[in-house]
Amino acid sequence: MSEAVSPFAPDSYPAMPAIAGVTMATAQAGIKYAGRTDVLLMRFAEGTSVAGVLTRSKCPSAAVDWCRERLSGGKAQALLVNSGNANAFTGKKGREAVSVSADLVGDALSVPTGEVFLASTGVIGEPLDPFKFDGVLGETATRLEGAGWLDAARAIMTTDTYPKVATRTATVGGTTVTLNGIAKGAGMIAPDMATMLSFIATDAAVAPEVLTRFLKAGVNGSFNAITIDSDTSTSDTVLLFATGEAGNPEIASDVSDDARSFRAALDDLLLDLAHQVVKDGEGARKFVEITVEGADSDGSARVIARSIADSPLVKTAIAGEDANWGRIVMAVGKAGEPAERDRLAIWFGDVRVAVEGERDPGYSEAAASQVMKEPEIRIRVDLGLGRGTATVWTCDLTKEYVAINGDYRS
Amino acid sequence: MSEAVSPFAPDSYPAMPAIAGVTMATAQAGIKYAGRTDVLLMRFAEGTSVAGVLTRSKCPSAAVDWCRERLSGGKAQALLVNSGNANAFTGKKGREAVSVSADLVGDALSVPTGEVFLASTGVIGEPLDPFKFDGVLGETATRLEGAGWLDAARAIMTTDTYPKVATRTATVGGTTVTLNGIAKGAGMIAPDMATMLSFIATDAAVAPEVLTRFLKAGVNGSFNAITIDSDTSTSDTVLLFATGEAGNPEIASDVSDDARSFRAALDDLLLDLAHQVVKDGEGARKFVEITVEGADSDGSARVIARSIADSPLVKTAIAGEDANWGRIVMAVGKAGEPAERDRLAIWFGDVRVAVEGERDPGYSEAAASQVMKEPEIRIRVDLGLGRGTATVWTCDLTKEYVAINGDYRS
Repeated sequence: MSEAVSPFAPDSYPAMPAIAGVTMATAQAGIKYAGRTDVLLMRFAEGTSVAGVLTRSKCPSAAVDWCRERLSGGKAQALLVNSGNANAFTGKKGREAVSVSADLVGDALSVPTGEVFLASTGVIGEPLDPFKFDGVLGETATRLEGAGWLDAARAIMTTDTYPKVATRTATVGGTTVTLNGIAKGAGMIAPDMATMLSFIATDAAVAPEVLTRFLKAGVNGSFNAITIDSDTSTSDTVLLFATGEAGNPEIASDVSDDARSFRAALDDLLLDLAHQVVKDGEGARKFVEITVEGADSDGSARVIARSIADSPLVKTAIAGEDANWGRIVMAVGKAGEPAERDRLAIWFGDVRVAVEGERDPGYSEAAASQVMKEPEIRIRVDLGLGRGTATVWTCDLTKEYVAINGDYRS
Repeated sequence: MSEAVSPFAPDSYPAMPAIAGVTMATAQAGIKYAGRTDVLLMRFAEGTSVAGVLTRSKCPSAAVDWCRERLSGGKAQALLVNSGNANAFTGKKGREAVSVSADLVGDALSVPTGEVFLASTGVIGEPLDPFKFDGVLGETATRLEGAGWLDAARAIMTTDTYPKVATRTATVGGTTVTLNGIAKGAGMIAPDMATMLSFIATDAAVAPEVLTRFLKAGVNGSFNAITIDSDTSTSDTVLLFATGEAGNPEIASDVSDDARSFRAALDDLLLDLAHQVVKDGEGARKFVEITVEGADSDGSARVIARSIADSPLVKTAIAGEDANWGRIVMAVGKAGEPAERDRLAIWFGDVRVAVEGERDPGYSEAAASQVMKEPEIRIRVDLGLGRGTATVWTCDLTKEYVAINGDYRS
């Protein structure tokens, strides 16, 4: 397994303020890893609203099933996350493990089991022994504090090379509310799913049904618009907890100024975390933004953008710093969406490489190659058909990706 | 660019008999490569029937457009193939290049331009200079012979590490008919398209509409059931020429004994060539057969089989000889087709690794690992839902694939 750290690993992390009504602690339960934390326990004030987006995989993990059942209640008082074992495809044993885990959390924090949320990440198919949490949770519950966000992000890492945190504020009814988020994920990342694990908490008061709509919309433009390898995890989970302790007037509609302010901060935070996930893509050395314009519809633009972003030939060309726009043409062509070869134009950065279905008459290989040497690359495709647009983000496909995934039993 | 030869490169090639009514020669036109042939010229007896399956890419090459227009005529007297330049995404210049090329072939062989078929493979977006064929074709036309099949296969290679040829016979109305085929392709290979270039000729007499139906059905179970990297070429072309010179009673229906005999030979030949393409997959070290059974329908089985075959995480695990069946579960789950986690069973070779939604109680890591060390690996998934089945073939994803495609401007 590779020890290389992503070139996009941040030099420093934002100071993560405490969120009123949220405390946390991490612990070493020895589930798989030695010498590092692998358990995160979070506690939320009574009355905290919760919204969630879960994997669309037909083979979800036991924890995903558990969360799906409990989200309808809309209330949360605790979250337990472990790394090192996904508790996925573990059958009846998996269902027992989540039930025992929730009971242990309920006992340790004196909260109802129905308000305990669970997430697991790591190897698939290995039974998770919930009694590894026993004892650990009782002690961890005595150390809960509001300042542990960076440690929390570290405890949920698997092949991630850096912890992912982000914080934002918004003004709601004259009150400043704060949103903090953490995420993990470096492989098995595909768009159109709530991707991997991310947990966001805010002290804002937001009506549960509004919170759910905001989260779904925000995830659509962030976690659902990234792809590392087109593979979708069995365990993808994004949960948003709102304690309401900031004291703002509750956001009860989607369209007020307060709603827009909160939503802008939430969308921005989700996009920040999603970009951090892509930048830590397994083996990634390039961060790539792909925008498709002029499509028949936004949906069509998105399918084409993903076809480009998921193409192994596009991704290896980017790894090789090769301005190989012929592979962009190929990926547009295979997407199956309306496209007319002779209207197509393609840019790498600001360099137009193709126009009207052939190489740009003013094409400069040197200028295009210069763009490809940058760590962050923008690719733009104009189909010249309509007004549909979409942007997705991805990374390159390197030998390191193959090395990491030929070794790691994830 | 790698010089490594596929471990599946054959030790010897079948003797390719002449096909009555078919002659050929190759030449060096210096289109891109130095010191090797890059042009194949084939001539078919007047009255030869032709059937074709072409890429479904929305951005097809100029030669594909040309073939699509001429296939409706159902007759062929010549085929010109070049390697080194795909003449794809070359706009008006590309259309002029195919027109000039067809004229040059028509002149060299004294055949009508409308019965000239063309195919090009190589770099996308680079204008093809058809006058490189001028002079070359006249001389090549003087060397046409029936015995050049292996040389023909060599002339159309790009990143292929070995030429791909196959031959079969069938008995039709008491007459032995022969089918010869060649193929090229090692990357940009995805299922559900006529994949890359393959040319088949037979001396059998087959009615054109029957020939077309046989080819479409045969391609569906062979070239359309393989995937190397999920990427689909702009130039994919499979053409089948039937000269009728064997003297058999014309096959005019789909259901006679003669039709069945011919079709069995054709299907077998197509599958042979398709397997050769996968075994020469860029960087491939493993040949993988994936069978999905117990699906809701054959179509559903095929989507799931492809989801497994195209998954970078499955393919890198196979490269690492890791019996990582959790990634098979992931790929089943992300396919979006009906699946029930708790009915799933998975085999590597004859080793059942998972059953009823969890690890097989009798699972032996050692036995599963032994299977993964073999060069050819069978993976079987039983969904336990219905009677739908499908088989697809793929290869592993290695560092070599990344190296080849980070360098080669294809």
